[in-house]
Amino acid sequence: MNIALLGYGTVGRGVDDIIRSRVPDVSVVRILELPDRLTDPRMTSNYDQIVSDQNIELVVECMGGIEPAHTFIAQALSAGKHVVTSNKAVVAAHFAEFAQLATANDVAFLIEAAVAGGIPWIASIEKVRRIDEVRSFSGIMNGTTNYIIDSMRREELDFDVALGRAQELGYAERDPSADIDGIDVANKTILSACVAFDVDCVRDLPVTGIRTLTKTDLNQFASHGLMVKLFGRGVCKDGSYAVAVEPVAITQYSLEAAVPSNFNLVSLEGFTVGPLKFYGQGAGSLPTGNAIVQDVIDVMRGRRQVYDFSRGLTYDPTLLTSDYVFRSSTMPVAADAWAPGMWLVRNRTATQARSLFERLQQEDPTAFMAALPKEG
Amino acid sequence: MNIALLGYGTVGRGVDDIIRSRVPDVSVVRILELPDRLTDPRMTSNYDQIVSDQNIELVVECMGGIEPAHTFIAQALSAGKHVVTSNKAVVAAHFAEFAQLATANDVAFLIEAAVAGGIPWIASIEKVRRIDEVRSFSGIMNGTTNYIIDSMRREELDFDVALGRAQELGYAERDPSADIDGIDVANKTILSACVAFDVDCVRDLPVTGIRTLTKTDLNQFASHGLMVKLFGRGVCKDGSYAVAVEPVAITQYSLEAAVPSNFNLVSLEGFTVGPLKFYGQGAGSLPTGNAIVQDVIDVMRGRRQVYDFSRGLTYDPTLLTSDYVFRSSTMPVAADAWAPGMWLVRNRTATQARSLFERLQQEDPTAFMAALPKEG
Repeated sequence: MNIALLGYGTVGRGVDDIIRSRVPDVSVVRILELPDRLTDPRMTSNYDQIVSDQNIELVVECMGGIEPAHTFIAQALSAGKHVVTSNKAVVAAHFAEFAQLATANDVAFLIEAAVAGGIPWIASIEKVRRIDEVRSFSGIMNGTTNYIIDSMRREELDFDVALGRAQELGYAERDPSADIDGIDVANKTILSACVAFDVDCVRDLPVTGIRTLTKTDLNQFASHGLMVKLFGRGVCKDGSYAVAVEPVAITQYSLEAAVPSNFNLVSLEGFTVGPLKFYGQGAGSLPTGNAIVQDVIDVMRGRRQVYDFSRGLTYDPTLLTSDYVFRSSTMPVAADAWAPGMWLVRNRTATQARSLFERLQQEDPTAFMAALPKEG
Repeated sequence: MNIALLGYGTVGRGVDDIIRSRVPDVSVVRILELPDRLTDPRMTSNYDQIVSDQNIELVVECMGGIEPAHTFIAQALSAGKHVVTSNKAVVAAHFAEFAQLATANDVAFLIEAAVAGGIPWIASIEKVRRIDEVRSFSGIMNGTTNYIIDSMRREELDFDVALGRAQELGYAERDPSADIDGIDVANKTILSACVAFDVDCVRDLPVTGIRTLTKTDLNQFASHGLMVKLFGRGVCKDGSYAVAVEPVAITQYSLEAAVPSNFNLVSLEGFTVGPLKFYGQGAGSLPTGNAIVQDVIDVMRGRRQVYDFSRGLTYDPTLLTSDYVFRSSTMPVAADAWAPGMWLVRNRTATQARSLFERLQQEDPTAFMAALPKEG
């Protein structure tokens, strides 16, 4: 099968390497790159040469960003080409449109690499759903923030020092906002909810990151036997669903607390299969490239995943209700003291907690919050 | 698709429940049971009625034991029926024969449920191998022993008390030898190696269980920052492979150390995908039933896994070499003191460690051993 790559950064090069060395049935015949980077005879900066080429059956989009990725994917699907993408931002923004185009043109649209890198997360959700309902999912979906928290805790680094290290190692961008403010996790949470619950997931979910997390916070949580991680979460029940991204304080003995460095751990709860958890590299050239190539092989073997969001779930924020710990110089609502400078506010939805947090941040921009998940 | 169940115990009932309630395209039309247990019109005690029935396309074997399961599976494959089984003992004993029969008769032979219950472990190894080599695998593959160790550590129970609880909860058999002596894990390790390395894995691998583990041992390991778990392990390198089952002392901060109760955690290391770990229920009616039904659906969708063990790997025990801790009243070889009554013996293969352990047990039947895996 002849395929084209859109983008030849870290992920694109990984895909090209893996296919050349390990997948003899697939050839990368075209690569879309910027006009000043055409270093390989397969490269072109003219997308028409790819989308109008009848010999190209499948397009791998790993450019990132919303445009022109959105237009290119839509054009490829409309031209009857399968699309495999690692671009969580564009899928989170346009999943329903892409799914519809894929169905209308009888081609595959696969997104394994867009969430949790090399971990077979999307395919596992889809497999579970052949038999089961997915009641909930949650997990550590961003390696950069896990690396930062892990370094802060193990080596007692300040947030900025840990972030600087993540940037040196190439885990974090120069502008780290998408990671540390939870935007990347929000996109992955939206995609996971779309696939797990068959719903065109809301985009305005409550999202809180870890930008204001301090060593002292981690020590306070540790003295309660807890460890903070940044979680994406979703719940589905009785025709309703809810999603959120926020720091969660979990017991120090949990699997999630043990996730080191920049690894990911994603979990789901199925009706018959029970809890399943998947751990691995959430990013990187070869792991993400591996996920893309797995999708390409699936397409070659005839997989045509159909995403249909017409089930009509309603959004019900009360499905995600927790007690919350806030560190803040002020606390305008009824709350219990939890630790020096920290307050326990009981029984809030993730949406309510986010609203309160925004209010606190107006007074105290250094404020921090974390959910305390209920037992059981 | 019409299928038959051989056996209607915990797993068989789980399969029947899941198919009836969730898989409209599949019907359980026949169930093989003992003559005095024919409580359902679908039941028969005469296997000929199943194997000669042209309407039955697939046989699910969940009787357990070697015979008559071996004969029944071989007859079903020879009659051109697909076979799905949860029976690790019979597959460990006869995998190559079953694989050959399946290929010769152009039918599927699938074993997801035989290892790690509801965890998609076998299918994940197979998927990884489409692109990658599996360099190694390891994991907690027996929920009963994990429950025993976890209870001993968390609740400071003696081994016998924890075992008794596991029996009360139905996790352990009345004769718990297969679990606590590592035989169950050995079967699962053999199957994992067959699938991961494409080899007709040796059956006489070194196997040590946890029968002699004490609370004091766990405390000694904990004072070194270590936690003991019973591991099945395999390594493949440069045309050779090795496998072993033994207690392993891992860092208390690892994911493996955090596995609670009767859960399983199995890991593999792929060349491009890196480490992947999978966590879930390793046993139980619905999780194991789920794994069987997933295999049934795969067959219905055309999956014909071909197992071919002709790659010709050689067995090289030096691939699994560790330092070992022994608790024993005697120590006939050069060793360093590690803790009161415990010795550190460096750089032994799993086979050598097992030989030394058998020698120690002749003097001290209460002796215990655990591998200390090398860093990195």
